[in-house]
Amino acid sequence: RRSYSITLLPGDGIGPEVVSVAKDVLSLVGSLQGIEFRFREVPVGGAALDSTGVPLPDETLAAAKESDAVLLGAIGGYKWDANEKHLKPETGLLQLRAGLGVFANLRPATVLPQLVDSSTLKKEVAEGVDIMVVRELTGGIYFGKPRGFGSNDRGEDIGFNTEVYSASEIDRIARVAFEVARKRHGKLCSVDKANVLEASMLWRKRVNGLASEFPDVELSHMYVDNAAMQLIRNPKQFDTIVTNNIFGDILSDEASMLTGSIGMLPSASIGDLGPGLFEPIHGSAPDIAGQDKANPLATVLSAAMLLRYGLGEEEAAKRIEAAVINTLNRGFRTGDIFSGGTTLVGCKQMGEEVLRSV
Amino acid sequence: RRSYSITLLPGDGIGPEVVSVAKDVLSLVGSLQGIEFRFREVPVGGAALDSTGVPLPDETLAAAKESDAVLLGAIGGYKWDANEKHLKPETGLLQLRAGLGVFANLRPATVLPQLVDSSTLKKEVAEGVDIMVVRELTGGIYFGKPRGFGSNDRGEDIGFNTEVYSASEIDRIARVAFEVARKRHGKLCSVDKANVLEASMLWRKRVNGLASEFPDVELSHMYVDNAAMQLIRNPKQFDTIVTNNIFGDILSDEASMLTGSIGMLPSASIGDLGPGLFEPIHGSAPDIAGQDKANPLATVLSAAMLLRYGLGEEEAAKRIEAAVINTLNRGFRTGDIFSGGTTLVGCKQMGEEVLRSV
Ligand SMILES: CC(C)[C@H](C(=O)O)[C@@H](O)C(=O)O
Ligand SMILES: CC(C)[C@H](C(=O)O)[C@@H](O)C(=O)O
Repeated sequence: RRSYSITLLPGDGIGPEVVSVAKDVLSLVGSLQGIEFRFREVPVGGAALDSTGVPLPDETLAAAKESDAVLLGAIGGYKWDANEKHLKPETGLLQLRAGLGVFANLRPATVLPQLVDSSTLKKEVAEGVDIMVVRELTGGIYFGKPRGFGSNDRGEDIGFNTEVYSASEIDRIARVAFEVARKRHGKLCSVDKANVLEASMLWRKRVNGLASEFPDVELSHMYVDNAAMQLIRNPKQFDTIVTNNIFGDILSDEASMLTGSIGMLPSASIGDLGPGLFEPIHGSAPDIAGQDKANPLATVLSAAMLLRYGLGEEEAAKRIEAAVINTLNRGFRTGDIFSGGTTLVGCKQMGEEVLRSV
Repeated sequence: RRSYSITLLPGDGIGPEVVSVAKDVLSLVGSLQGIEFRFREVPVGGAALDSTGVPLPDETLAAAKESDAVLLGAIGGYKWDANEKHLKPETGLLQLRAGLGVFANLRPATVLPQLVDSSTLKKEVAEGVDIMVVRELTGGIYFGKPRGFGSNDRGEDIGFNTEVYSASEIDRIARVAFEVARKRHGKLCSVDKANVLEASMLWRKRVNGLASEFPDVELSHMYVDNAAMQLIRNPKQFDTIVTNNIFGDILSDEASMLTGSIGMLPSASIGDLGPGLFEPIHGSAPDIAGQDKANPLATVLSAAMLLRYGLGEEEAAKRIEAAVINTLNRGFRTGDIFSGGTTLVGCKQMGEEVLRSV
């Protein structure tokens, strides 16, 4: 009987509701697959600010690091929006990523046949879209130094940040992306702005340097502005995309919106050692928090990614994914993906239907 | 009789073909409106590299600066793709923007009723989209220093760039954007990443600081990742967008692809003093260069922006825009916007039809 410790970080807004559903699903699938989960719940983000004064308490990071995998709900809300930088919920999330060393963020954008009508794209453009964005998560302009405020030679206020990548930072994310592409359809598109930025020129050079180690993967390069266009013109041309932290932030959100159902999309953030961090890509949705309206499926699917990428429990992961598909096939929909002819349910009932489908 | 000097920069690929059409249209409209144009053609980009060894010869910049407005075709091509940075066609374009001091890049993304089917978005999402992206063009990470290559404390190669904005750089682009929004539908959305980047925090603070000068404009703020999503989810929520150089590069291309007809979209780059730079947003399309297949309408509409924003010749600008609409209404289409029931024409004939419609 395998046993794993899971850190639960419900966070803010709808986070607690959706994490609670995912926890129940993990427990059931675990008991059916002979896996024991030991859960420990700790605060992060706005919830941690309110209870401890900081967005990532030392105890939270320590608990996360000691565990086998971390499942996060969502962070942030109007209440803390005006906070200074070091007291923003977002800062807690960035500290958590850095603290866990999870440099590779895997964000699938898949259009499910059941939900193709949710997309704002024409059906023939949207159907079959299945993209994996591999985003560098602990480097680049998010963490580069120097950064801050100052004044220029005319005494004016300035704000500045540094986009910087080292060879090894690029190599390790590129390797993850090549491996991911190899297990998918063997196509990797590296996105950069190498016609303008030196950081991108090094990026492209290092990615090219690894290509010979992955002869079975077809590598291409695209400028970020063109990628933003091509995702809309013909998203099916993409299989796996690898890019830096800030371009990945933008493009993975763009790709996810192509599906029209961001309430369905999970993500995995992994490093070389230590536990991975798994979370839905949607935000904390403070406007519907506590109203039993949230779609828990992105978090349930994040739990599946936790099993696959975090614990190597492929069979259990597939079981969760199949249960989600089955639930959709039985016609259950939360408000964000509801359409005529289906059955509108709340967050809790959606969770119960998934349990029934396992 | 008003008289203006216009610098023509045909550039590379399809550039010469489309600029030649726009020149004829300007000449005709000028003669009908009592305006004389004196044209001077000089090389830039790959064409300049081949003939002079640099992508922006001193004579080209000098000619552009002395003139009343500059019309550019397109730059770049496979031939020069592997060049070192200072010998890239793109570098010539960046030097031209900096040399002319054109800090404000206006990029409309308008879905014309005649072309709504070209969009990959559902008709009800695409129709009526009319967005103006105001992109900062001479600052930020494109030009920030320090930049380059080096090594870190572990002796590894690094590549780095600096995202930096000063208060006055932000203020001047924000003022342009407020003015543009005021003349449109009075809504301005400023896009940044102020939850992570100091450069964005200063951006947001300065933009907010100007809001009281424009009480008739409704100002909002959006994070860049969310903006990339919202453009797809519901593009009609946007009127005018203002953002920094790199986010503007990405979002304006994304917005333009929403229309499905980037062969139709012009742009204007203007500064405080001196001539503006006007160019289609599409690239040099080397694969169809010299084959009389290019769509010249984006360059023709750029000539209209040249008249409006560069010379203050509103009536002549409107005359060109009306001629383009009339040509579309008469059913003429180049290959990029062709669909059943319309008449397929080449670049030259499209030009002739516009002349006939003036
Ligand atoms: C909340 C924010 C700091 C974060 C990011 O920019 O990485 C979010 O947008 C994401 O993509 O996870
Ligand atoms: C060619 C390139 C340098 C340029 C840019 O990034 O500004 C282009 O993408 C544009 O948007 O005009």
